[in-house]
Amino acid sequence: MLIALLTDFGTRDYFVGAMKGAILSVSENAKIIDITHDIAPQDIASASFTLRACYTDFPKKTIFVAVIDPGVGSARRAILVETKDYYFVAPDNGLLSFVFDKAKTFRVFELTNQRYFANNISRTFHGRDIFAPVAAHLANGVNSNELGTEITDFIRLKEISPRKISDKTIEGEIIHIDRFGNLITNFKTENLPEKFYLETGGKKIEKLQTFFAQAKKSEIFMIFGSAGFLEIVTFRASAENLLKINRGEKVFVTRLN
Amino acid sequence: MLIALLTDFGTRDYFVGAMKGAILSVSENAKIIDITHDIAPQDIASASFTLRACYTDFPKKTIFVAVIDPGVGSARRAILVETKDYYFVAPDNGLLSFVFDKAKTFRVFELTNQRYFANNISRTFHGRDIFAPVAAHLANGVNSNELGTEITDFIRLKEISPRKISDKTIEGEIIHIDRFGNLITNFKTENLPEKFYLETGGKKIEKLQTFFAQAKKSEIFMIFGSAGFLEIVTFRASAENLLKINRGEKVFVTRLN
Amino acid sequence: MLIALLTDFGTRDYFVGAMKGAILSVSENAKIIDITHDIAPQDIASASFTLRACYTDFPKKTIFVAVIDPGVGSARRAILVETKDYYFVAPDNGLLSFVFDKAKTFRVFELTNQRYFANNISRTFHGRDIFAPVAAHLANGVNSNELGTEITDFIRLKEISPRKISDKTIEGEIIHIDRFGNLITNFKTENLPEKFYLETGGKKIEKLQTFFAQAKKSEIFMIFGSAGFLEIVTFRASAENLLKINRGEKVFVTRLN
Repeated sequence: MLIALLTDFGTRDYFVGAMKGAILSVSENAKIIDITHDIAPQDIASASFTLRACYTDFPKKTIFVAVIDPGVGSARRAILVETKDYYFVAPDNGLLSFVFDKAKTFRVFELTNQRYFANNISRTFHGRDIFAPVAAHLANGVNSNELGTEITDFIRLKEISPRKISDKTIEGEIIHIDRFGNLITNFKTENLPEKFYLETGGKKIEKLQTFFAQAKKSEIFMIFGSAGFLEIVTFRASAENLLKINRGEKVFVTRLN
Repeated sequence: MLIALLTDFGTRDYFVGAMKGAILSVSENAKIIDITHDIAPQDIASASFTLRACYTDFPKKTIFVAVIDPGVGSARRAILVETKDYYFVAPDNGLLSFVFDKAKTFRVFELTNQRYFANNISRTFHGRDIFAPVAAHLANGVNSNELGTEITDFIRLKEISPRKISDKTIEGEIIHIDRFGNLITNFKTENLPEKFYLETGGKKIEKLQTFFAQAKKSEIFMIFGSAGFLEIVTFRASAENLLKINRGEKVFVTRLN
Repeated sequence: MLIALLTDFGTRDYFVGAMKGAILSVSENAKIIDITHDIAPQDIASASFTLRACYTDFPKKTIFVAVIDPGVGSARRAILVETKDYYFVAPDNGLLSFVFDKAKTFRVFELTNQRYFANNISRTFHGRDIFAPVAAHLANGVNSNELGTEITDFIRLKEISPRKISDKTIEGEIIHIDRFGNLITNFKTENLPEKFYLETGGKKIEKLQTFFAQAKKSEIFMIFGSAGFLEIVTFRASAENLLKINRGEKVFVTRLN
């Protein structure tokens, strides 16, 4: 059974090793895949985008373990989400909001059955002590119903979707910046008018292209990225560096006619 | 058989790929797990801590290959350590000191049987040429006795443990700084008096909490981390940045009554 | 079947996860190994060196997927290279030049059979949509001939090899800088006279040693690295930082007699 990991633990510490060890101690045949451990610390929206951008590329029945968990040790709940094709184990803090958007139908379980947790649960590292062993038991065939109780009041972030702010203008934001400095907005095709321009950080961008090598070096343009979202990019340079724009910056899309 | 890797090779070069290739060339069914390759270059004590912090989370019989090896090519020895539950392959430079502390009983073998090394051994990359193939042969069932000769004069770092410097004060140090900027000291519960305060880098810290979300943003406090060591931390900020403290900084713990 | 990945995608985004998911969706038993995803963005020569430096350490029949792809979406071709022992899937942009040098005999196929691509092919992410599924079908036993058409006009970078510029002097360059700050040149033993000195960035270097611990701290010297290339290095310090030299800097080797 495939278990795919997405965390903000970084790769320089023991955190990821400990999670992998904890998984394999429960489910020795689990096949562990790293999606990324370099989500910006505690950036739940960016993690949510990243997971959405790749989870459907995985084989059916893959178990995703997503741990960006600033509330660890507090009263925040741990959840398991079951969609038609996949499982997700995560803290209940909105991290799965984009998955909820994409999957449309799903069931959410609060992880309450301590029998499937580690014997000693730290207050600071539920990745190792709760999420990893639960995922491993799931890989071993334990049912969602056995792991916890179904709930409906889970957290879902509204702010990840663009909102209309005037007749012609929709407001969104930079949801993620990738390693090439491409600025990924939360606009999908269905959010956009046929003809539009975009403004962010005091800059107006009008050109929309279909691939990178079409452009001149350092020219700023828009593209529909491979994750299905509108991106602000340049060719052979970093839009992030050229525009000096940060994650979270507001983006305004205005209809042209 | 599980082989877990911990090195300071970084992830931008061919080093890790070459080690993995070398392992799989000898033991095609080995299951390779990355703990981390981002140990600060040549930081043996930090690597030793990192390994200690996670090795017991792994299934029994896991083989750990730990390569932080500034003395590569010189006369430093290569060793295999066998504890009741695990195997460790590493240079003999103190890297396993924290493992020795935790495991308590173990046997150490100098790797002398060149039959289990690569055919051509470089002077600069024993990770690929000695440690990887030895680990792979171990995974294939070769005995420790066959791989080398038992020794007792291996290197064990004394300086990794705190030492009493006055009636009321114990001196330790920052042994590791994690990606969140948490400062991990080498104090464990058993090293500490019931009530105490801590001083490091000219700062006095008195508050001890049990989890992160208990604190105010940017407040500095102490916590017992998930690895069992005392850490100096803040909530949603980096203690490293706020305190401007480096790895290796002295830490003084003073008893309060 | 082993599939080894080398890209410039970094590890903080969904790119690598998406590729792995795409591979496993086609070939569920494929064993995926990360060589590196931290090639400097779009640095084809550095990637070519990195692949050459480790591919022969892998078991025979390993499939390498190398994606450094600034021309993605344009007319650049996708290729499969078959040597006696290995397979390589990559864009046709010179990335396999060092492999061609080392393997000497090989066949090159343009990937034309869309039956083995993803159903929907983006203009920006052929790693996921073409290279990953092709590698997975190869792992499943599909023949090279079935995947594409043999070609001979593939791209091979001439500039990766040193060239004679006078009777006594050969010009090469810094082809890669590793995480320790070692400067790797494109000179191999066979390119070098018996006695020589080297100049780069206005510095003359005469000392050639066989391993690191031989030197004094921060002394600059040359070494034949574990990849078989001449490197400019220091002991317990970074030659990159000391010399302030960048990737691509010219290197001049002058014969001494």
